[in-house]
Amino acid sequence: MDKTLTILHQNLSFVLEGVKKVSYQDRPIPSIQDPHDVQVHVKFTGVCGSDVHYWQHGSIGSFILTSPMVLGHESSGTITSVGSAVTTLKPGDRVALEPGIPCRRCEPCRGGKYNLCLHMAFAATPPIDGTLAKYYVLPEDFCYKLPDHVGLEEGALMEPLAVAVHVTRQGRVGPGDKVVVFGAGPVGLLCCAVARAFGASVVIAVDIQPARLEFARGYAATGVYEPAKGVEASVNAERLREMHGLGRGADVVIDASGAEASVHTGIHVLRTGGTYVQGGMGRDVISFPIMAACTKELDVRGSFRYGSGDYKLAVGLVAEGRVDVKRLVTGTVGFREAERAITDVQGGKGIKTLIRGVED
Amino acid sequence: MDKTLTILHQNLSFVLEGVKKVSYQDRPIPSIQDPHDVQVHVKFTGVCGSDVHYWQHGSIGSFILTSPMVLGHESSGTITSVGSAVTTLKPGDRVALEPGIPCRRCEPCRGGKYNLCLHMAFAATPPIDGTLAKYYVLPEDFCYKLPDHVGLEEGALMEPLAVAVHVTRQGRVGPGDKVVVFGAGPVGLLCCAVARAFGASVVIAVDIQPARLEFARGYAATGVYEPAKGVEASVNAERLREMHGLGRGADVVIDASGAEASVHTGIHVLRTGGTYVQGGMGRDVISFPIMAACTKELDVRGSFRYGSGDYKLAVGLVAEGRVDVKRLVTGTVGFREAERAITDVQGGKGIKTLIRGVED
Amino acid sequence: MDKTLTILHQNLSFVLEGVKKVSYQDRPIPSIQDPHDVQVHVKFTGVCGSDVHYWQHGSIGSFILTSPMVLGHESSGTITSVGSAVTTLKPGDRVALEPGIPCRRCEPCRGGKYNLCLHMAFAATPPIDGTLAKYYVLPEDFCYKLPDHVGLEEGALMEPLAVAVHVTRQGRVGPGDKVVVFGAGPVGLLCCAVARAFGASVVIAVDIQPARLEFARGYAATGVYEPAKGVEASVNAERLREMHGLGRGADVVIDASGAEASVHTGIHVLRTGGTYVQGGMGRDVISFPIMAACTKELDVRGSFRYGSGDYKLAVGLVAEGRVDVKRLVTGTVGFREAERAITDVQGGKGIKTLIRGVED
Amino acid sequence: MDKTLTILHQNLSFVLEGVKKVSYQDRPIPSIQDPHDVQVHVKFTGVCGSDVHYWQHGSIGSFILTSPMVLGHESSGTITSVGSAVTTLKPGDRVALEPGIPCRRCEPCRGGKYNLCLHMAFAATPPIDGTLAKYYVLPEDFCYKLPDHVGLEEGALMEPLAVAVHVTRQGRVGPGDKVVVFGAGPVGLLCCAVARAFGASVVIAVDIQPARLEFARGYAATGVYEPAKGVEASVNAERLREMHGLGRGADVVIDASGAEASVHTGIHVLRTGGTYVQGGMGRDVISFPIMAACTKELDVRGSFRYGSGDYKLAVGLVAEGRVDVKRLVTGTVGFREAERAITDVQGGKGIKTLIRGVED
Repeated sequence: MDKTLTILHQNLSFVLEGVKKVSYQDRPIPSIQDPHDVQVHVKFTGVCGSDVHYWQHGSIGSFILTSPMVLGHESSGTITSVGSAVTTLKPGDRVALEPGIPCRRCEPCRGGKYNLCLHMAFAATPPIDGTLAKYYVLPEDFCYKLPDHVGLEEGALMEPLAVAVHVTRQGRVGPGDKVVVFGAGPVGLLCCAVARAFGASVVIAVDIQPARLEFARGYAATGVYEPAKGVEASVNAERLREMHGLGRGADVVIDASGAEASVHTGIHVLRTGGTYVQGGMGRDVISFPIMAACTKELDVRGSFRYGSGDYKLAVGLVAEGRVDVKRLVTGTVGFREAERAITDVQGGKGIKTLIRGVED
Repeated sequence: MDKTLTILHQNLSFVLEGVKKVSYQDRPIPSIQDPHDVQVHVKFTGVCGSDVHYWQHGSIGSFILTSPMVLGHESSGTITSVGSAVTTLKPGDRVALEPGIPCRRCEPCRGGKYNLCLHMAFAATPPIDGTLAKYYVLPEDFCYKLPDHVGLEEGALMEPLAVAVHVTRQGRVGPGDKVVVFGAGPVGLLCCAVARAFGASVVIAVDIQPARLEFARGYAATGVYEPAKGVEASVNAERLREMHGLGRGADVVIDASGAEASVHTGIHVLRTGGTYVQGGMGRDVISFPIMAACTKELDVRGSFRYGSGDYKLAVGLVAEGRVDVKRLVTGTVGFREAERAITDVQGGKGIKTLIRGVED
Repeated sequence: MDKTLTILHQNLSFVLEGVKKVSYQDRPIPSIQDPHDVQVHVKFTGVCGSDVHYWQHGSIGSFILTSPMVLGHESSGTITSVGSAVTTLKPGDRVALEPGIPCRRCEPCRGGKYNLCLHMAFAATPPIDGTLAKYYVLPEDFCYKLPDHVGLEEGALMEPLAVAVHVTRQGRVGPGDKVVVFGAGPVGLLCCAVARAFGASVVIAVDIQPARLEFARGYAATGVYEPAKGVEASVNAERLREMHGLGRGADVVIDASGAEASVHTGIHVLRTGGTYVQGGMGRDVISFPIMAACTKELDVRGSFRYGSGDYKLAVGLVAEGRVDVKRLVTGTVGFREAERAITDVQGGKGIKTLIRGVED
Repeated sequence: MDKTLTILHQNLSFVLEGVKKVSYQDRPIPSIQDPHDVQVHVKFTGVCGSDVHYWQHGSIGSFILTSPMVLGHESSGTITSVGSAVTTLKPGDRVALEPGIPCRRCEPCRGGKYNLCLHMAFAATPPIDGTLAKYYVLPEDFCYKLPDHVGLEEGALMEPLAVAVHVTRQGRVGPGDKVVVFGAGPVGLLCCAVARAFGASVVIAVDIQPARLEFARGYAATGVYEPAKGVEASVNAERLREMHGLGRGADVVIDASGAEASVHTGIHVLRTGGTYVQGGMGRDVISFPIMAACTKELDVRGSFRYGSGDYKLAVGLVAEGRVDVKRLVTGTVGFREAERAITDVQGGKGIKTLIRGVED
């Protein structure tokens, strides 16, 4: 490592240069250009599956790494300076960062669906740099002040929680609903917790790993189901339905797994008129029981990132103690160990690993 | 033919006895049991693809013909008698018949989704007899009085029109929308017409038969598209989009074809946040571009039969001249030629064939 | 009292004969006519403001007592016999009774809004007899089985809870919402509890009686407000907003008071785009700040009784321990003391008084 | 008039200096500051009731003229220059101008309700200057390109049409609906036309001026009603209902009059479960039949300006020939006659008066 770098240490950044090739670079400190922007000293950043995917493959779908890019987008931090038009934040404020900045001008933005913005600048999605740097600049309204009793570690978890909030909203989960969540990774677990906070009576977590189900049961699921192997999806659906007294089926199914078998089981476990949400990412094209979806008159809905009100609600759910995100943090490493955090996640260690920000 | 039958002639019925085995039987005249019921002399009945399918295969999905069943469910007729509690109809009134009678007591019924009734009695769905008989009895509120200027032939078309109304409502088609309809058979054509009546600006019909597209263009489509063979669905979607100036995509896609290629092209031609409705019946399981649906945050919705308000609106659309159903009638046969009507439809002759009711 | 009556004792009923004129009559035991009906031995009945109003005035709006009528409609009981088509209930089952039976055939019924049924038969609304009798007959699907751990006293509270569920649903109260409830009587208190169960972050109870506010604070409200007298509604709204940190206003206002001052304060305390629900009954015509409702683009919604899914959810909320209805029961009297229960409620004693059913 | 002014003639503007005190001033030409802005040469401007109100009273509600302000906000024009980030417009393009620019950052903006923006800058609402100047600068996305066959006069009518679109959307008017519109001024007439374009079967215009009803009947109403004087609102509602065969009532009522009597009649003429929209401005506080709204479970909704998609749809409705705005133009005056246009409107002359832009 360059000795000078250690000394200057202005804006140390964790940069992905290519497949499995990273560096810790000292980049220029970003300054406030727009009067509505704030500068944040990043304190904690969670590792997301997408960080791992870019590190491993250099691309996700049509997003391809063509030049070095800072990774990271699940972050919290402390305000270090504010633009002249900022009115709600001041230096020292502790905030969660919403990492996708929409154009505010396109039809989806004006229509209240900024997660579908046609010109989105999303942290750590090529070519936009992510938040794994000492400093990060973003608009005031994409920072969410944390109440005193909510820690910065929890602040970094607001991003996956906002994903779960959005998925659960897409599912229109409401009081009394019976919900089945496929996939008990971080987002699936958070979907269980959010569904409970939204008033769902029954929340069944489904996963093929017993250890994850064990955790889910103690966390937020009211029941769990481990799919039998080598049987039809409709058989698993029937067993799940009977085991958990779902009667004529689940009201809402959330897929946070991306697996084809989950999709099939999910469609079959729904009642007529139920809602299915595809939250998990997987293969582009899969086989799909479309006639069941048609004749049961299901709503099959995509869920993409998070939009209007999701982050605010995520912070509120944690602040009110309705969702416990702390329990998902299974490890915290220093900034210089960022790559190890990524390989750990890739290796399936723990649930959520945080990377500490660069210290002063 | 049995001579006695010709003489008695009380309630001549067109009965499916088995695969490609039909008979014209004189069955007992159905009488009014419930004070809310009315008895109708059936006047016209359209042939539906499902009639053809039962005739050809003896079953549709889990509905299996196990005993002789009267076919037909697209009917109009004249009221012949009414129960003691009937207040809005009288003998002589001309009506369209809604052929599926829900239980009115299950959760879907009480929640306003009677098309999803758990105990539905649907005409010509085993084991329930259909309407291809001289007389038919059903509840008052499932008969829709035809205005004087609407003919009984048109009355028989209310059933496929109600299907189209329901599909278009599932698609939430509204003023200014750009809609693409796959499949230019009777239901697809009616979906085009209903979408226009709902205020859609652009309605593109897609079919692989040029003759059908020709008809669609002159009927209710604002444009047509014949998919290129041997190219990816995404390529067809892109061409369709460019040819018809759909910009960032269609607002709503309606599939009335049931074909896998249509589903793929439909998903790809939608804008982010758009709505896809599966109206057409096809293979139970197909390949499906689920990641496109997920990341574009589409709503993929099933559509099953018709429910609250659909028939009433269908009659209104015809009465006001917003939808022309007459032009779809390409042939009318006598009651004794019912089987020929079915073989004609199976052979792809014409758009909609009507069977005359039994005369007095 | 008639000695014979005491002896026969077949179906002792509490009958309102005229203004402040009641009798305890032994009426014929109602028998099951429809195969879907069940007969219930009524065990507990709550006294509602409408019972008091009929006793005191002989009418409510256009509903006028013209012949003797059994009072009561907030009841629970035990199934004593079932019709031949009943499948989900058997003698001995403990149930809550939904007291309004819709026609199931009119447009509102078919559209899922049976609370707006054009031919509703509602218990203790002239000329329909109420539930304050030993036996009562109603359809299976209007009985809600109580789980073992839910008592019959709680079962009688399902009616006001269903009212509160409906009001809160009309308000579209959701997770994170800030809600203000005017009126801390039984329904207002239950609205507070339901709003919390629906995920509301802030629920402020408003009343002019400090004792009721005290109870509300300990029950389900997160804060309370006692309106200052002699000041403008907008001033009270501003104080309420500041005292409870409502920022740009409440998301939802529920009126369970029927008072003109509450309506005004409620409209002014809402944020732009907020929702106001009129649940409380009061004067037919009041003054109303319509321009505030217009320029803030509010939704002002009525709420009438309860409909599809409300009773089921009410039972679920109690069964899961999300709403505690027991604490509202401040007195229980014997059947022969029914009139005293009414005068007590009229006199403002306690929160909810129950009348025991006729014993065997 | 100042001779110099005539000569320089750079950006002649029609300025309201105080109550009934106007001037024609040559102000500096506004230049493009933001790269997304465009500069427009204003060509036609309609006179709105609010222009008249400011001229007559110097204020509307809490908006008070405290310094000279350019009037006008219903305008069309030709693009004269574009900012560096503009991609969809070029000099020479003919556009309709949406005159309220939201902040794009507040909660309502991010949630898709920018008409409720907390920091709206609306033309000719103090202290923001209006469009009655030679040049006007606004963001690209608030300009709507007119198709070749749509004239600039029509372009100026897009503003009241967008108001009508928003009102009609707030009313959720859909195919087959029966709609009653109170007030047959420009906005009421346009609401009739939009309701028809949205598929309403019946659109009844109500006004106390027979001449306006005459126009409405020939324009877009399917029927008209002139309220009887000196009778209860409920009586007028009953007569209207009977005269026009509304059965159990209107599905939607739109008030574009602001009159108390209209509000009462409107609430009474609605069916249970119907929707009422307050579009017209009138007295802040009126008497209101709140119990009818409550027990009929109405939705009473405000409508304020226009928001996401409204202007685009307005242009589309005119472009497709579904709404004819030309017929509402009853006079056009030169820019220097702007004040006369205002006094004419105040005097009730004609339906819509346009003011020509300053010529080169």
